Amino acid sequence: MLITKTVTGMKDIMPKEEELRQYLLTILRKTYTEFGFMGMETPHIEHLKNLTSDQGWENEKLIFKILKRGEKLKEAFDEKKYENICDEALRFDLTVPLCRYYAEHRNDLPQPFKAMQIGNVFRADKPQKGRFRSFLQCDIDELGDGTNIAEIDILLATSTFLKRIGFDQYGFKFAINDRRILKAAQNYAGFSEEDFEKVCITLDKFDKIGFSGVKEELLQYGYDKVKVEKYLKLIDNNDGSLSSLKKLGDELKEYLEIDVLNSLVEIISTVSELNNVKIDFAPTLVRGMGYYTGPIFEIQSDKLSSSFGGGGRYDKMVGDFIGTNVPATGLSIGFERLITILMENNYEIPSETKKIAFLFNKDVNEEIKKEAFKEALELRQKGHVVYTSPKNKNIKFQKEALSKEGFNEFKEFG
Amino acid sequence: MLITKTVTGMKDIMPKEEELRQYLLTILRKTYTEFGFMGMETPHIEHLKNLTSDQGWENEKLIFKILKRGEKLKEAFDEKKYENICDEALRFDLTVPLCRYYAEHRNDLPQPFKAMQIGNVFRADKPQKGRFRSFLQCDIDELGDGTNIAEIDILLATSTFLKRIGFDQYGFKFAINDRRILKAAQNYAGFSEEDFEKVCITLDKFDKIGFSGVKEELLQYGYDKVKVEKYLKLIDNNDGSLSSLKKLGDELKEYLEIDVLNSLVEIISTVSELNNVKIDFAPTLVRGMGYYTGPIFEIQSDKLSSSFGGGGRYDKMVGDFIGTNVPATGLSIGFERLITILMENNYEIPSETKKIAFLFNKDVNEEIKKEAFKEALELRQKGHVVYTSPKNKNIKFQKEALSKEGFNEFKEFG
Repeated sequence: MLITKTVTGMKDIMPKEEELRQYLLTILRKTYTEFGFMGMETPHIEHLKNLTSDQGWENEKLIFKILKRGEKLKEAFDEKKYENICDEALRFDLTVPLCRYYAEHRNDLPQPFKAMQIGNVFRADKPQKGRFRSFLQCDIDELGDGTNIAEIDILLATSTFLKRIGFDQYGFKFAINDRRILKAAQNYAGFSEEDFEKVCITLDKFDKIGFSGVKEELLQYGYDKVKVEKYLKLIDNNDGSLSSLKKLGDELKEYLEIDVLNSLVEIISTVSELNNVKIDFAPTLVRGMGYYTGPIFEIQSDKLSSSFGGGGRYDKMVGDFIGTNVPATGLSIGFERLITILMENNYEIPSETKKIAFLFNKDVNEEIKKEAFKEALELRQKGHVVYTSPKNKNIKFQKEALSKEGFNEFKEFG
Repeated sequence: MLITKTVTGMKDIMPKEEELRQYLLTILRKTYTEFGFMGMETPHIEHLKNLTSDQGWENEKLIFKILKRGEKLKEAFDEKKYENICDEALRFDLTVPLCRYYAEHRNDLPQPFKAMQIGNVFRADKPQKGRFRSFLQCDIDELGDGTNIAEIDILLATSTFLKRIGFDQYGFKFAINDRRILKAAQNYAGFSEEDFEKVCITLDKFDKIGFSGVKEELLQYGYDKVKVEKYLKLIDNNDGSLSSLKKLGDELKEYLEIDVLNSLVEIISTVSELNNVKIDFAPTLVRGMGYYTGPIFEIQSDKLSSSFGGGGRYDKMVGDFIGTNVPATGLSIGFERLITILMENNYEIPSETKKIAFLFNKDVNEEIKKEAFKEALELRQKGHVVYTSPKNKNIKFQKEALSKEGFNEFKEFG
């Protein structure tokens, strides 16, 4: 007998959830398209080399590698070169493939290129409740734009999408910071350049362990108490407001280019004003990946302790493919988390069409059947949903199951 | 430097093509939904065992296998059990995963279950022009319906979709046959049960080698000349019409259940009449896969020598998962071929929205920028597409590239 369960950590998607997914994706695609983002796709399978050569990805073990086939595989085995049995793998994000795509096709693309990529990515994480090894990511990115027009675009487009699906009611906001502010603040406090990544890793835990936890951990690492306290005092004076950001900028003026500050202020004020959306300045926001170089952001909701999307500027990744850097920034929506929030809150898809089931008795004759199919076609042309099927022996059970999928009108024939 | 080309046999999809793909998929999803098909998804990764245990798939070598990780991999290598280094693989079609899905979730699904599954499948074929190792399949299937309501549904829905995208202009028709008619005709001519698969494999080449080629090959295999000629004479008298089918049925009446014939006649007459679509009876149609058990069909176009979709009834596959058979039938659209036909014919997506580019000079001030973003938001709320970006040094080149993507209105700021 064959195996009916999915492979470990993967998920079958049931009709009810799929309906919601497609509804959201339609609005997402429409919104991002209106903002000038152009749909594109990369293959699910990528060169292993592209995935493993330090693109900020913490753990090679999480990669699904694909076995070579035929002669190539035989060769690797014959020579006992087991490290050579794979040279392809499933992508773990959409950003690395996007950079490869841009490097390959940039002469055929508008500049800057505003990309929209929606697709599954694969990570062999330890399976946990609600976290899967394959999940949908929805990314927008701007490649070739070094100005803050890119960040404004991305945050306006994403907040427009969230408003259009009625996500306001669950409360959402952006948190924003800039890698260069993180650096300046640490320099101001007396940390050296080499400490940066390590201090950031601790700071990244802020949401979980709080100020005291961060302080404790930094002291444990042996950092000077004066430095640690100076740093924490600086960022503690923050209420997320523009004036907090400006005040911090003022204190950092010897360590930070004024343009960095002004640009961030403009992003926050433009987006919050034009789309009436909350953007908090968050000096403790780190966003794990080491590849970020400028503004970084997250989407947060009252309904979720962790973020359900985020991104930032990564001006150096395309350079790994073509040798010269190309400014780039992007945002990824954690689509599975969005779905989870909406399903848990019994989100209703607005709909004006009827869902009708046409059930045929066994004895139905050809004439009546044809007439029924004709009627069904006419209803469908008007946009209604008509399910046509034989009537089951257990009609009560059949109708109940159909009701669960939204069918509330039944018509029997024969 | 990292690799900018895709892995062998895979394809990057450019914005122009992606726009067409999403346009078609939106209509496809809407149409199939109106016909009562319910969207669902299975993971890209499947149990290797489910894929290799004779599901009609000709060649295990075409499967992308996924390497185990961590301890499990180490174990397999330590014990030199190289056949154990993989137990998962990428799906090569959507039908096997659908049967697994149905077997696992059938108690939570309406009966019959009308499934719509759209997703990528993977086959490590030899790369050829226009054929890729990963491609999108669009399947509808009805599980649990042994009546011809399922076939009528599937053919009505698919022809409705093709008409809605204006595919009439390229000419399309269905070809239909029934595995049981194939069997009856061979029995009538004197072939034995054991000859069936072999004779079918030859008959399947009919489109390429014609009657004389089929005859020659069967004689070469050593089949009796009388049998071969009786068989070919029987199916040669066919013009694809209903009366041809009825005449054939008449001759086969001792070898074929009358219900099989009547049911096929009803499918053809109902679909062709209600949707004004051509359905040819094709007694030479085989459809490779050994798992078909009843009616089989193909979508053909004047613009393409091979079919661009097809399917049939496979009443025994679910049985491999649950031990008891469940009637099932389905159709798969060869989406990549559909795209190829439309692109080659310069298919235009109907659209009523404007595509405008807002280009910002370097010296633009914050005030003007904010006003421009506001204007862009208002245009987008009306459904127009607005691309916002810095103005490039080579403005002519920038505008040309944008024109290619459909932007024909430009507005400069600052």
